[in-house]
Amino acid sequence: MKLLEDRIIHEGQLQTGNVLNVASFLNHQMDVALFAEMAKEWKHRFEGENINKIMTIEASGIGLATIVAQYFNVPLVFAKKDSAIAIAGEVYTTAVHSYTHGRSYDIVISKRFLTPADRLLLIDDFLASGAALLGLISLAESANATIVGAGVAIEKGFQEGGRIIRGKGIRVASLAVIETMDAASNTIIFGKR
Amino acid sequence: MKLLEDRIIHEGQLQTGNVLNVASFLNHQMDVALFAEMAKEWKHRFEGENINKIMTIEASGIGLATIVAQYFNVPLVFAKKDSAIAIAGEVYTTAVHSYTHGRSYDIVISKRFLTPADRLLLIDDFLASGAALLGLISLAESANATIVGAGVAIEKGFQEGGRIIRGKGIRVASLAVIETMDAASNTIIFGKR
Repeated sequence: MKLLEDRIIHEGQLQTGNVLNVASFLNHQMDVALFAEMAKEWKHRFEGENINKIMTIEASGIGLATIVAQYFNVPLVFAKKDSAIAIAGEVYTTAVHSYTHGRSYDIVISKRFLTPADRLLLIDDFLASGAALLGLISLAESANATIVGAGVAIEKGFQEGGRIIRGKGIRVASLAVIETMDAASNTIIFGKR
Repeated sequence: MKLLEDRIIHEGQLQTGNVLNVASFLNHQMDVALFAEMAKEWKHRFEGENINKIMTIEASGIGLATIVAQYFNVPLVFAKKDSAIAIAGEVYTTAVHSYTHGRSYDIVISKRFLTPADRLLLIDDFLASGAALLGLISLAESANATIVGAGVAIEKGFQEGGRIIRGKGIRVASLAVIETMDAASNTIIFGKR
């Protein structure tokens, strides 16, 4: 999606350790008008799929997922990192490994909000290692919900997450796929998946 | 706001310890159509205030704040609990005490996204002790930004937060104010502020 690629080129900051900082419009400050264009694109790509719920994980994907839910005219539900709400028997839970923080944490979702009748579109801001999406997939599978696909804003195509998720037979619609990025030369090369 | 009060009456679950569980539409699963009506109400109440940014705190306020940002046609920024992004000198930071978890944590916001030119509307899902809003106010004051007001979905009027925030001269627009709630008799009484 050219609109998103252009924003990444103009505002993204390449940092050492393969970090792409897009905090000015995607995951700290949020450009809601851009989110609307992204939501329309996913609506178009998943036309006719009868998606009835958007699913994401706290925190930085929630804003984007909210606008997507609006365009699909369905509710959204987000997996929580807050184990204080995890009442045994009332939630589905799974572990997610954070490479940024070097540790694992549990995510939970109330059993009330995921059912076998659900046809889910998973939404997240980044796809890199795939850990967050794999966590959402695990929760959805626990509920016997149908995963129609995943909408990702920025996929780091040089990491393994996209291959792993697609290898599970899940359709991944990434709006910007970075094939290579290099902080030293300030270069980003986009591809398609 | 009657629409919100009705949803609380029909779907809210009163639990011991003055807990009101509204996870089915407000802060776990999210009803985006309801959020739109709430956003319109705040837009009406803060008409002519030249708000140029919505500010909230992760995680459960982000969805609501995103729809509010859309109706005000401005960006939003959220304070992060993730201290991994806290590079000294580049962020404003303050401590927030969580009564739910019985401990304090730091929240941070990039200095790039809060400036003296900003006229902020703070948004959150709940106002009880006031701790979260006080944290946002502290960050905004660090940046010499103007706080136009705070929009709260549900205010627990029997707790001290509303009095403390209003006592600082900040306008608080709560869409549902609970004067008393009682799990034993399953009773909620709404008021106005």
